[in-house]
Amino acid sequence: MEIAALGEFGLISRLTKDIELKNPETKRGAGDDCAVLAFDAGRQVLVTTDLLLEGVHFDLQYVPLKHLGYKSAMVNLSDIYAMNGRPRQMTVSLGLSNRFTVEDIEAFYEGLRLACEAHGCDIVGGDTSASLTGMTISITCIGDARPEDIVYRDGAKATDLICVSGDLGAAYMGLQLLEREKTVYNQQLREAQQRGEKPEDLPAFEPDFTGHEYLLERQLKPEARKDIIEALAKEGVRPTAMMDISDGLSSELFHICTQSHTGCRVYEERIPLDYQTASLAEELNMNVTTCALNGGEDYELLFTVPLTMHDRVAAIPGVKVIGHITKPELGLQLVCRDGVEMALKAQGWNPLKHEK
Amino acid sequence: MEIAALGEFGLISRLTKDIELKNPETKRGAGDDCAVLAFDAGRQVLVTTDLLLEGVHFDLQYVPLKHLGYKSAMVNLSDIYAMNGRPRQMTVSLGLSNRFTVEDIEAFYEGLRLACEAHGCDIVGGDTSASLTGMTISITCIGDARPEDIVYRDGAKATDLICVSGDLGAAYMGLQLLEREKTVYNQQLREAQQRGEKPEDLPAFEPDFTGHEYLLERQLKPEARKDIIEALAKEGVRPTAMMDISDGLSSELFHICTQSHTGCRVYEERIPLDYQTASLAEELNMNVTTCALNGGEDYELLFTVPLTMHDRVAAIPGVKVIGHITKPELGLQLVCRDGVEMALKAQGWNPLKHEK
Repeated sequence: MEIAALGEFGLISRLTKDIELKNPETKRGAGDDCAVLAFDAGRQVLVTTDLLLEGVHFDLQYVPLKHLGYKSAMVNLSDIYAMNGRPRQMTVSLGLSNRFTVEDIEAFYEGLRLACEAHGCDIVGGDTSASLTGMTISITCIGDARPEDIVYRDGAKATDLICVSGDLGAAYMGLQLLEREKTVYNQQLREAQQRGEKPEDLPAFEPDFTGHEYLLERQLKPEARKDIIEALAKEGVRPTAMMDISDGLSSELFHICTQSHTGCRVYEERIPLDYQTASLAEELNMNVTTCALNGGEDYELLFTVPLTMHDRVAAIPGVKVIGHITKPELGLQLVCRDGVEMALKAQGWNPLKHEK
Repeated sequence: MEIAALGEFGLISRLTKDIELKNPETKRGAGDDCAVLAFDAGRQVLVTTDLLLEGVHFDLQYVPLKHLGYKSAMVNLSDIYAMNGRPRQMTVSLGLSNRFTVEDIEAFYEGLRLACEAHGCDIVGGDTSASLTGMTISITCIGDARPEDIVYRDGAKATDLICVSGDLGAAYMGLQLLEREKTVYNQQLREAQQRGEKPEDLPAFEPDFTGHEYLLERQLKPEARKDIIEALAKEGVRPTAMMDISDGLSSELFHICTQSHTGCRVYEERIPLDYQTASLAEELNMNVTTCALNGGEDYELLFTVPLTMHDRVAAIPGVKVIGHITKPELGLQLVCRDGVEMALKAQGWNPLKHEK
C-alpha cells in the first residue's frame, strides 16, 4: 500500500494504534502536542538522541527494515545504560520518500517495538514526514535513574581498572562482509545488463556468509547491554566512569581520559575478540586490533572501577579487564603483544571527514 | 571554514562550548551519553519532537540559516506552550552535507540560541552527522508543568468558547510571496544564461516585498505564544483543551473535536486576519478564509474555555473568540459571512500526499 493512500495522520495512527503504554511513568503517549511523563520523586531524567541517515549510517540494499528498526532503537537504549540508567520512553521521527510502502514502515516499526518491549521502553510519539531523498531516522530516548547511581564519563581515577563487556570489532567486520557481498552482487548485475539480461531473470543472489553468522548478527542486530548493568548492580559495583562503545574503543577511551583528566594503559592481548572477527580480519588482510580499536558500532560498555572491585567484576560473565587508568602525564598507551608501547589515537568514526 | 576541517567532535565542541546551562533542572548538558535533568517533585515532564527536512519543510534558497535555527526552535517551543507547560531543555540533531561551512552552522545555532534564550530553554545535546543529500533538522524539546495545569486536546465540552491568539493565514501568505519572488529570480537567471551571461554578472536581485513585511516575518520568524500562556495564568483561566496551530485551523479543530468527542461552530467573520494577509490574498486571487483555515505554520494557540470565562479571555489582548463547541452530532461547522453553514474539512498539511 502506498503511504500517500493513508496520509501523514493515517500512517501515524496505523503505526501507533495498538502501542500499549506499560510504564507507570508514561501518563500520555502519542496523540497530543507533547507526551506527558511523571517520574518518581528523587529520580533524575536521562535524555539521549541519535540521527541515522540513509547512505551514511545504513544501506537499505542489505539492511532489512525490521533489523533497521531494531538497531535504531538499540543504539539509543545503549546510551541510557551507559549512564547506568533504565530506559522508559522513546520518540521516533521518520523522513520517508514515496518509494517506501506502508508495509515497509510497519516492518521498521516491528523491529523498533521488539527492541522497546525487550527493554521496557514505551514509544510515546514522534513525527512522520515526507523526504525528497533518503530515509531519515531520528530517535530520542528518555530514561531515569537515582542521582547516586548515575555514572558519567568524568569519574575515572588513576589505578582504576578499565573493563569492557562482550567482544569488539565484530560489528565492523560484519559491515566489511556485507559490503563485500554487495560489491559481488552489483558486479553480477552489471555483467548481466551488459549481456542484455534483465535483473529479474537472474538466479536469486546467494551471498556467502558461511562461518560469519556472528559478525552479521553483531552488525545487523546489536544488543544494548542491559544484562551487564543488572549484573553490576547485583555485584554491588558502581563504575566510576562509563560509556558505550559506538565509535570504537580508542575514541571512547579518549573521551573518558580527557573528561576524567587521566591517562590509561590498555593491553592489546586483553582486548576481547571473537574467533570469527580474527578469522575474517586475517582473510581480508586487516589488523584485527585496529578493527577492535577503531571499528565502532559494538554497543558494548566501557567502564572503570576501583582496583578493590577486581574480584567482583571478574566474576561477571562477559566482562573483561583490559587495562587501568593512569596519571594524565602518562598519556593513552596501548601495550602491544610484543611488549612495545604505542600511543593510542582517537580515530573513531568521523563521517564528516570521510565525506570530503 | 569547511566542516571536515573540524570533524564531528570538533564541530560539536565549537557549537556547544559557550552554551550556558541556566535552568536548575539541567544537571548535565552535552558531552556525555545522555543529558541529565532533575525536575521538582510534583511536576510532570513534557516531550515533543519535530523533524524538518530540506526541500519539504524549508527552502534554503530564501530562508537564511539564522532564521531557520530560530524557527526550528520555535516550532518545538510552541508545542510545550500548547500543553500549558514551560520549556526547559532542547536537543538538536543536524544532518549536514559538505556544501555547508562552519560559519553556516554557526548562523543556524545563533538563531537557535536566540530562540532558546528568549524562552528559558537550555540546549543539552544532540547529534551531528554528515548527510549525503539535504539538510536534516531534528529537535526534541522537554518542558515541565504541574499535572493540574496541563491542558490536553481532549477536554473540550459542549458550550465551551473556542479562542485563537494572534491572526491566521499570514505565514502561509508569506510563503506564497517567497515562492513568487523565487520564481521571478530563477526566471531572470535562466534568461541571463540563455543570453550567455554569468549569474555573478547580473545586478543583485531585489525581491519585491514592499507592504508585505509582516507576512515575511510570520513565515520566517514565528513566535511561540509564551505571552498568551502567561496572560491566561494571570487571568486565572485554565483552558479545557488546547493545541498550537501548525497545520491550519481546520485541521486543529478537527483534532480537538475528534479527541473531545464534540462538534464545533466557528464564525468566518470572527477568524482573525491581518490586513496584509487579506490584501495579498486578493492580489493573488486566493480566498483569504481558506488560507486562514488551511494555511498552517501560524504557531498561534487554539483553545477552548468554559462559557463563564468569556469576560476574562476577552480581556486578554490578542485573543479572539471565534465560535463555540457543540454536541458531536452537530459536526464541525463554519458559519460563513452570508450566514450559510458549511462543514469544515480537515485538509491540513499532508506532505506525504503532495509528494505523490
